[in-house]
Amino acid sequence: MEPTTRVVPQVQEHLEALKERLLVMGGLAEEQVRLVSAALVDRDVDLAARVQAGDEPLNILHKEIDQRCVRVLALHQPVAIDLRAVLAAVKINTDLERVGDLAVNVAEAVHRYLQHPPVDVAERIPRMADLAQRMLRDALDAYVRQAVPLAEHVLQTDDLVDALKNEVSAALVPVMEASPAVIAPALDVILIARHLERIADHATNIAEDVIFMVSARDVRHHGPTA
Amino acid sequence: MEPTTRVVPQVQEHLEALKERLLVMGGLAEEQVRLVSAALVDRDVDLAARVQAGDEPLNILHKEIDQRCVRVLALHQPVAIDLRAVLAAVKINTDLERVGDLAVNVAEAVHRYLQHPPVDVAERIPRMADLAQRMLRDALDAYVRQAVPLAEHVLQTDDLVDALKNEVSAALVPVMEASPAVIAPALDVILIARHLERIADHATNIAEDVIFMVSARDVRHHGPTA
Repeated sequence: MEPTTRVVPQVQEHLEALKERLLVMGGLAEEQVRLVSAALVDRDVDLAARVQAGDEPLNILHKEIDQRCVRVLALHQPVAIDLRAVLAAVKINTDLERVGDLAVNVAEAVHRYLQHPPVDVAERIPRMADLAQRMLRDALDAYVRQAVPLAEHVLQTDDLVDALKNEVSAALVPVMEASPAVIAPALDVILIARHLERIADHATNIAEDVIFMVSARDVRHHGPTA
Repeated sequence: MEPTTRVVPQVQEHLEALKERLLVMGGLAEEQVRLVSAALVDRDVDLAARVQAGDEPLNILHKEIDQRCVRVLALHQPVAIDLRAVLAAVKINTDLERVGDLAVNVAEAVHRYLQHPPVDVAERIPRMADLAQRMLRDALDAYVRQAVPLAEHVLQTDDLVDALKNEVSAALVPVMEASPAVIAPALDVILIARHLERIADHATNIAEDVIFMVSARDVRHHGPTA
């Protein structure tokens, strides 16, 4: 299977289009995370409802990108880094769709949470949302630019988000024990922290896919080089 | 790109090997779910610890299967249902690896939970674990046999698991409000229910991939046929 001069530029064109669509999808996912964090901070129930209803564009893009991936593999048989880039796109697409679902889950929890007086969340939740957004942006930027150091930076930031999630639970359990009235809203804050941590996990997955795509090196499971 | 009689049987051989490896991985994932549920029911801390330490075989298979997928695409350029079967394998592999992670998360929560006197979980947790296991088995069986009706059955069972998860939270919040001493263990039961529900979600993802693979019909997002 030799690449011909006729086929290779077509593959590149399709890959560029794929990347462009993934960036659009990533932008939408980030925006959902940004809005739901604002809904929590500003106690804006309407904004939370908008996020809850707002993932249809992501779902449509999810299907479109999957179809583009199948088509480019079927018609152009990319090899080496181009093949890995398409397989990375298949996975990144799944991750971004899940981020959209999780933003909706956060919005549902925010919606319930806002029915109660505020629980002190010590700025950890908006901070987690900011970090998750930045991780998503950096991971996609790393995909487009094939930038391994940036992808590695995303992996490091994930530890910070995990630590914040654990802090939220550790801080709220004694509050719940001291005051039964806050149990329901505190439970929602704990869930929100967990959903945000999972969003950060999806950004981490994307970063790992980028490292595999560029270097054909599998950094998952912290195991030896594959 | 015409299939030649020389190439097609090789693709079939590779696809069979892929399926066989995914079944092994699915069996390991199921077993982790089965064991962690037994650890909870029998209050067996050692068994929970075994599950916590037990996902290395899944991680190794995850990498191996990913490499097989890349290789079969690069060397054999499958088309039509064979191409969709490889792409489904890429996604199923990711789902099974996450199931392994989630079983470890359940085991961690079970481990913490067993430090406390039991909370009445009304048999819902072992029931959720049974359903999640069965969904995983059926989804993989549907993949191997290209059985759309079985995949559709998996999608239906997911609603039942979601309902059980909601029942667990609804039942435990008043218990927590009435008795601060159970807040920490009840919180772990709620987390366990959520992790099990996510395991069922991964089985659902696999079932959706099977339907797309067989019929080239995209049933995700409950939207119109793609």
